[in-house]
Amino acid sequence: MVVAIEWRRKPTPHIRLIDQTLLPGTETYLEITTVSELVDAIQSLAVRGAPALGAAGALGVVVAMNQGEREGWSPEELERNVDRVRDARPTAVNLMWGVNEVRGAMPEGVDRVLELALQVVEEDGAANRELSRLGADWILEATGKETVRVVTHCNTGALATTAWGTAYGIIHELHERGKLGLVYADETRPLLQGARLTSWELTQDGIEHVIQADGAASSTILRGMVDVAIIGADRIVANGDTANKVGSVALALACERAGIPFVVAAPFSTVDRETATGDDIHIEERSALEVLELGGVRTAPATADAFNPAFDVTPHDLISAIVTERGVVEPARSGGGALFADLVSH
Amino acid sequence: MVVAIEWRRKPTPHIRLIDQTLLPGTETYLEITTVSELVDAIQSLAVRGAPALGAAGALGVVVAMNQGEREGWSPEELERNVDRVRDARPTAVNLMWGVNEVRGAMPEGVDRVLELALQVVEEDGAANRELSRLGADWILEATGKETVRVVTHCNTGALATTAWGTAYGIIHELHERGKLGLVYADETRPLLQGARLTSWELTQDGIEHVIQADGAASSTILRGMVDVAIIGADRIVANGDTANKVGSVALALACERAGIPFVVAAPFSTVDRETATGDDIHIEERSALEVLELGGVRTAPATADAFNPAFDVTPHDLISAIVTERGVVEPARSGGGALFADLVSH
Repeated sequence: MVVAIEWRRKPTPHIRLIDQTLLPGTETYLEITTVSELVDAIQSLAVRGAPALGAAGALGVVVAMNQGEREGWSPEELERNVDRVRDARPTAVNLMWGVNEVRGAMPEGVDRVLELALQVVEEDGAANRELSRLGADWILEATGKETVRVVTHCNTGALATTAWGTAYGIIHELHERGKLGLVYADETRPLLQGARLTSWELTQDGIEHVIQADGAASSTILRGMVDVAIIGADRIVANGDTANKVGSVALALACERAGIPFVVAAPFSTVDRETATGDDIHIEERSALEVLELGGVRTAPATADAFNPAFDVTPHDLISAIVTERGVVEPARSGGGALFADLVSH
Repeated sequence: MVVAIEWRRKPTPHIRLIDQTLLPGTETYLEITTVSELVDAIQSLAVRGAPALGAAGALGVVVAMNQGEREGWSPEELERNVDRVRDARPTAVNLMWGVNEVRGAMPEGVDRVLELALQVVEEDGAANRELSRLGADWILEATGKETVRVVTHCNTGALATTAWGTAYGIIHELHERGKLGLVYADETRPLLQGARLTSWELTQDGIEHVIQADGAASSTILRGMVDVAIIGADRIVANGDTANKVGSVALALACERAGIPFVVAAPFSTVDRETATGDDIHIEERSALEVLELGGVRTAPATADAFNPAFDVTPHDLISAIVTERGVVEPARSGGGALFADLVSH
């Protein structure tokens, strides 16, 4: 299994990232030793996926402290640079969460912050394994099927996390249990995380799958070709409304119509109980060129413009289950109220 | 306005097509004098769009008769070649309809068949103009808006028809009346008819628009950014179920949720009353390479496969209005029964 993000102590302490923009063609690794390098890597999506961004946030504080030490930053400069890491992308709550998990320990020194950051990484891996088990149990129970055919969107595997994956983790778990049918992987325009990354991971794990255009997902669901949709999440708010890669809500609407479960899988760190509803989630808009060009070649007319939201919000009443390592909640059934109360005290 | 398909008498009688696979980069015209050239042009999507395929079918019979004359075909060979034109693509009913409109006149000679084929072309243009007026009236009435913001999918303009357009025709009509707000054009993967063709036509007509990834359409609708979705159709069956470019049904589901109208626009020749429901429509599956490659460059892993249906079916209960030149029917309201009875006797 590929490691998307890890801490290396030598030669200089650094974050080691696989450059996801070049996959599946090329496996190149980035060695991040400065805040600017990290912010660039986050914004270009060299590292992406909500849980991986949590790790990048936590380890990013260590990078900032090391750079500040080398370059003699004032405390204010250091804080400003930690804020730059935290704010590099606005929608995924995990990035902010990862920074905040370790930031309070900065007065105790970089060794303590690194210790906490590595704990964030390790706990995410463990959370993925646990939520994958819980998710597979829930889906087999809910569908009553011997084998389950799955549609998924974007990439939620080891590349999007610190290890194993979230929605992908459930798919992998079903595969290991011998309970998985064909997987339909949405290509996920504009940056093709599904065609490039999910298909690459599925191939490596020997899981039978087909890629499809995002526009095909709704009819694949309505034609009865899948039993469940499983996606990840970039932010899950108090009432269960969930932000995820743009295109996700189309799957949710089709699942509702088809009467099959729509499942969101994420570590509990993706839950943002401070935000009341999906209306309050800031949706990142990315460069129009991601839509207007393909592989650097202009496909649209020279003067055309594009609207390029990176995420959409699925309302909680369309979500059959939110699977976290602390347990499963069922927003569509429970109406969204006090959804996470039991899990908080977990 | 560009002419996608027309009949030229000189030097040799031929169908003149703009090669839509090369737009918007290059304007190249194909001169079709054989059945094989025509079938290739249809299957490669050099000519596409249900109404344009109707014209290609009718004119294709003339091409076959001329080629048969030159090459001394037997009557059986000629019939077989007319069948090849009719069956070049399975989902769009207009291709079959166009062939059948003129085929019966073959014993009367090629001049008579050409006369009828040119009538098919001319009537399609007139139908587009009329249905555009009816569609604009219906939408302004239904939305009650001073200006209407529109989302559309695939390409339904002059390139997809013999002139003016269907769904695009309504957009153009709203623009001419000063009633049009911003247009969101889905890029329409895998072949980008929206980003390449619709945006090109909108640009030429001076209509303000943005391109978006297909996955963005649902949230654009749910966020209240548009007032209506307007699409074309490749086949509308007896109960109002409609086959159109894959991705269309996602817009319909989102419109239902958002409580805004979902409008299908097509000439009456797209209505196939012989087929009872959408379940009976044969959905063309195209080459996996259309999904696995971009501009000839492989984006997916080398061993990956793709599922590439070209169309999906929107159930009639999600369709607020079907607009034809003979009038508007409202399948969602009327429950799909005897939907076209009044229009048939038109």
